[in-house]
Amino acid sequence: MDDPGAEAVDAAVREAASAGAQLIVLPELAFSGYVFESIEEARLAAQPLDGPYVTGIRRLSQETGSVIVAGFCELGEGGAVHNSAMVVQDGELLGCYRKAHLWDRESDFFTPGDAAPLVIDTAVGRLAVLICYDLEMSDWVGTAAAAGAEIIAAPCNWPLLERPAGERPLEVVKAQAVAGAFKVHIVVADRCGHERGVDWIGGSVICENTGYPAAGPATGDDGPARPVVLTADLDPASSRNKSLGPRNGVWDDRRPELYWIGCP
Amino acid sequence: MDDPGAEAVDAAVREAASAGAQLIVLPELAFSGYVFESIEEARLAAQPLDGPYVTGIRRLSQETGSVIVAGFCELGEGGAVHNSAMVVQDGELLGCYRKAHLWDRESDFFTPGDAAPLVIDTAVGRLAVLICYDLEMSDWVGTAAAAGAEIIAAPCNWPLLERPAGERPLEVVKAQAVAGAFKVHIVVADRCGHERGVDWIGGSVICENTGYPAAGPATGDDGPARPVVLTADLDPASSRNKSLGPRNGVWDDRRPELYWIGCP
Repeated sequence: MDDPGAEAVDAAVREAASAGAQLIVLPELAFSGYVFESIEEARLAAQPLDGPYVTGIRRLSQETGSVIVAGFCELGEGGAVHNSAMVVQDGELLGCYRKAHLWDRESDFFTPGDAAPLVIDTAVGRLAVLICYDLEMSDWVGTAAAAGAEIIAAPCNWPLLERPAGERPLEVVKAQAVAGAFKVHIVVADRCGHERGVDWIGGSVICENTGYPAAGPATGDDGPARPVVLTADLDPASSRNKSLGPRNGVWDDRRPELYWIGCP
Repeated sequence: MDDPGAEAVDAAVREAASAGAQLIVLPELAFSGYVFESIEEARLAAQPLDGPYVTGIRRLSQETGSVIVAGFCELGEGGAVHNSAMVVQDGELLGCYRKAHLWDRESDFFTPGDAAPLVIDTAVGRLAVLICYDLEMSDWVGTAAAAGAEIIAAPCNWPLLERPAGERPLEVVKAQAVAGAFKVHIVVADRCGHERGVDWIGGSVICENTGYPAAGPATGDDGPARPVVLTADLDPASSRNKSLGPRNGVWDDRRPELYWIGCP
């Protein structure tokens, strides 16, 4: 690893592993940065699944003994570029998810995924991966939860937008809401600082399946936060109990026959 | 009006109207209280649409010139009891909505509604009504938004549950999330104080279609709030613009063909 993104990833993973993290989540497009100027630039940054991004994380997962979820710029079939995230454990690539809901100029660079959310069994429990704007689609989170996800790992790059003083970013609010609504832990690793004219929220948060944060959000009122490694203890198995009280439950209470989820 | 519930409703409506409110939202089961001991007690409290609950609010709406949404215990066909909310304007009943998602012991007392969310044109814009737990079902809020709701009026009775210090109640967080996700204003009138061993959050909030509160939440960290009349200026027409940025939109970004909304 000899580029700045890879060095930052390497340092962050080692810091988290030293703190005892068994699951380590990195931001969206962790190696390359987010703000591409053209599809050509994005394609130059993209790597296939046997390229250095995945290979480097496989090595790190073996060295640290941790499950790692990292966003990266993926070079797919026929030169297509995807905003993806890998799940790596014991030096092996367990799965790769391609972001299904693209934000703003991403559709100039990336081909969206068409598959179901990635939900797989890992050493830290049944894990789903969604990327950034995906997490704002409550039905997409529900689809992952219905597939048995105990923890959702969400690499994010949340651009900093204006908000009232003292208010948590709505991106964090939405993550809390779906964590509580579907009783699933959500681990958000967000980008911080500045990049080519874009300020990032730096809103990393580890949200328990109660909907309340166990750590973070890292951001404050005064703009983008500095890089930070958040840690928390989560009980993955607790997400299997979908009860919301003596008479209520996540799935039991839904009335899908009444819902309209199309596009008017 | 000669019972305590009706007197409180009367005073609150007049206070809100004096403050210039054109839309006035009252809590769930505003007249009768929420904590019934038996179906018999609930049925005794229930009134048909030509009973004193609706008649009293019709009179108040005419006197104050305001649109009023009020939760009430409705006596339906064949003696069925419903947890309902009325929409009244210019002395006329515009519509009545029956809560579709029942919480805890409500299913002992109430027959749930099977109709779509009530969405109707009023003097203050296109108005939807959902009741309490309904608002926690993001697909139900989306169904109302898809029917053109500019404002959702939500009579609530949120029981006070334990939460971490400094955290907003998750009920408020969920309301913010769906307001922002579907770009619809949400006006929550919540119950406060104590009732037969139940503490209420008192979390009334007027949430703009940005997802951020324009007024409230009324509750603090230190238990149930006292009764309060919250007011805010909302621009109903702004909810018609579903753009979320130059390249994104509430409906355009959804991929319902990928979503699974059933019950596993």
